[in-house]
Amino acid sequence: MRQIKAYELAGLPVQLNPEHIPERPPVQDLCFYFDAELAQITELLPGKKVIIITDEIVNQQLSHKFPDYPVISFPSGEEHKQQSTVDQVIKKLIGLEAGRDCFLLGIGGGVVTDITGYVASVYLRGVSFGLVPTTILAMVDAAIGGKNGVDVGVYKNLVGSIRQPSFLFYDYSVLSTLPVSEWVNGFAEVIKHACIKDALLFAELERYTLHDYQQDPSLVSDLIEKNAAIKNSVVIVDEMENGERKLLNFGHTVGHAIENLHQISHGHAVSIGMAAACNLSEKFSTLHFEEASRIIRLLARYHLPVDIETDHTRVFEVLRMDKKRIRNEVNFILLSRIGSASVTPIPVELLQHHLKEIL
Amino acid sequence: MRQIKAYELAGLPVQLNPEHIPERPPVQDLCFYFDAELAQITELLPGKKVIIITDEIVNQQLSHKFPDYPVISFPSGEEHKQQSTVDQVIKKLIGLEAGRDCFLLGIGGGVVTDITGYVASVYLRGVSFGLVPTTILAMVDAAIGGKNGVDVGVYKNLVGSIRQPSFLFYDYSVLSTLPVSEWVNGFAEVIKHACIKDALLFAELERYTLHDYQQDPSLVSDLIEKNAAIKNSVVIVDEMENGERKLLNFGHTVGHAIENLHQISHGHAVSIGMAAACNLSEKFSTLHFEEASRIIRLLARYHLPVDIETDHTRVFEVLRMDKKRIRNEVNFILLSRIGSASVTPIPVELLQHHLKEIL
Repeated sequence: MRQIKAYELAGLPVQLNPEHIPERPPVQDLCFYFDAELAQITELLPGKKVIIITDEIVNQQLSHKFPDYPVISFPSGEEHKQQSTVDQVIKKLIGLEAGRDCFLLGIGGGVVTDITGYVASVYLRGVSFGLVPTTILAMVDAAIGGKNGVDVGVYKNLVGSIRQPSFLFYDYSVLSTLPVSEWVNGFAEVIKHACIKDALLFAELERYTLHDYQQDPSLVSDLIEKNAAIKNSVVIVDEMENGERKLLNFGHTVGHAIENLHQISHGHAVSIGMAAACNLSEKFSTLHFEEASRIIRLLARYHLPVDIETDHTRVFEVLRMDKKRIRNEVNFILLSRIGSASVTPIPVELLQHHLKEIL
Repeated sequence: MRQIKAYELAGLPVQLNPEHIPERPPVQDLCFYFDAELAQITELLPGKKVIIITDEIVNQQLSHKFPDYPVISFPSGEEHKQQSTVDQVIKKLIGLEAGRDCFLLGIGGGVVTDITGYVASVYLRGVSFGLVPTTILAMVDAAIGGKNGVDVGVYKNLVGSIRQPSFLFYDYSVLSTLPVSEWVNGFAEVIKHACIKDALLFAELERYTLHDYQQDPSLVSDLIEKNAAIKNSVVIVDEMENGERKLLNFGHTVGHAIENLHQISHGHAVSIGMAAACNLSEKFSTLHFEEASRIIRLLARYHLPVDIETDHTRVFEVLRMDKKRIRNEVNFILLSRIGSASVTPIPVELLQHHLKEIL
């Protein structure tokens, strides 16, 4: 088990801001534990009243690895990332008489880590928590950065907060039970990181196949840690998404608009969103045709969709409610080349105008 | 209209901590506007997409004073301080296409200010808000300090956060429609402030009657500003309730346990809670019999109850879930004399043992 403080993982010599609001853990205090085994987690939590929060599938598949703490589980799937699930978890916490000294341990994919973080933000006005991501997507993206929340109907993550966990705990052995569809799901965010931040990673992804990563534990652990480092380096300098962090929304504006509308996986939605963003980048002449083509091909190579038959009017209706909208503009992420992205405010009418051509 | 920054109202020469997490307004940036008129509020919000959040009674009585902004209202009463009300407000915000640039203006009593603050904390992961308290209780206590949230069944404020509004806006003319029961309700918190912090205020309250305050606008505005200053001075040095702020929970441990159990007003519950805390303070020999008697008499003088016939077993069950419980102890607020309080951790078993004698 290797412990790395977030500021070290970001390559910073010291903690950025030692002053912080108590009970709201500062991002640089976040610890990453790589190469760990779930059984070791008790060492990090001596004497704490730990409660595991998970979903029913993870509970079924991994509970034999869980340490001996009470478990709260809820039905699996994005359709349960709703306030009603949060309400149920809170009722169960009350049933367990969980006080401010409790510690919530979220074990699962992005839905579990989002729900756990959100419950920890509001239960008793805030309690401590840690996360054990069990999917590629949660390991490289969803569990990192403190964003949490629930959907409201078709609107993704419309309610939530930003609150950092005490730690992120990586046990790669859990990936052995991960279905292929979940590998594909996670690689959408890996490709996103490569597109906006890391041309070398992009080249690596072009060199290998999904099968290679599935077969080679050291290749995949290296990939996960590389991607955790990319996400962490962005979050640590811009936790509240006032600048740099916006770039991580590449593919997510159109992606979020279609995800719940079509009830497709997050990775599929983001992949289609990235393709649309590439098309728009090309249209605005910020991205060269050949680079856009390389991205589309890489997505396809990892079995990700790059197009969808949809009702553009309904997509636009959901897109209007995007959290990135300020007045009548959406902060859209465009690419200038592979490895380099920028935020461009685009009037919603212009977006509506182009929607049929890019999606 | 007088504007006072929170750090000035606290008598501090400068802002305490200029570094802050963006999108989470620091407590010292909070502005108080006293002696204001609701019509003037538009001056503070030029160009903002303001949405008023209020309850049906306030909407009925004061909407003629409201500036011309869209209004979201919900049924009045503590029984509606529940997640379902938050869910409804959020759905209406979506209906209004409220983006991150919106500004929520909560106009009402403590339930409205709590719901508004909570919605502002979680909607789109946080939007700006301001509060216009319309009851004595909200003006002297509930609206100040950033604590927000909802009840979960009988458990008071079990879910919520701490987030400061941009401003607090005091229009004393709204008090003309306030029923006597609401005056009584508010004076419970005024007496609490006197008990824990201000012996001179206590003496003033002994000199006057509720009727005096109701009849004399300058007397009541002076009282409100004095109490806002007391609450603010505590919050500004201990926003997250790690020390000093705990004292404000005087009367609230037993008070919260009986409030929703008996469906009595917050002021009545806190008054009974303060009487119980005085009894316990006497029992532990921290408070002299004569001082305890003066407090009981003052509560009665302001038409507040000091006793209740209750099921002590059920009270204890609710009390066990108190947010101030850490492991097996509740941080109980005891008095040493009028104007001076302290935090004393009391084992829950000991509290259970004494409950019948103090309540």
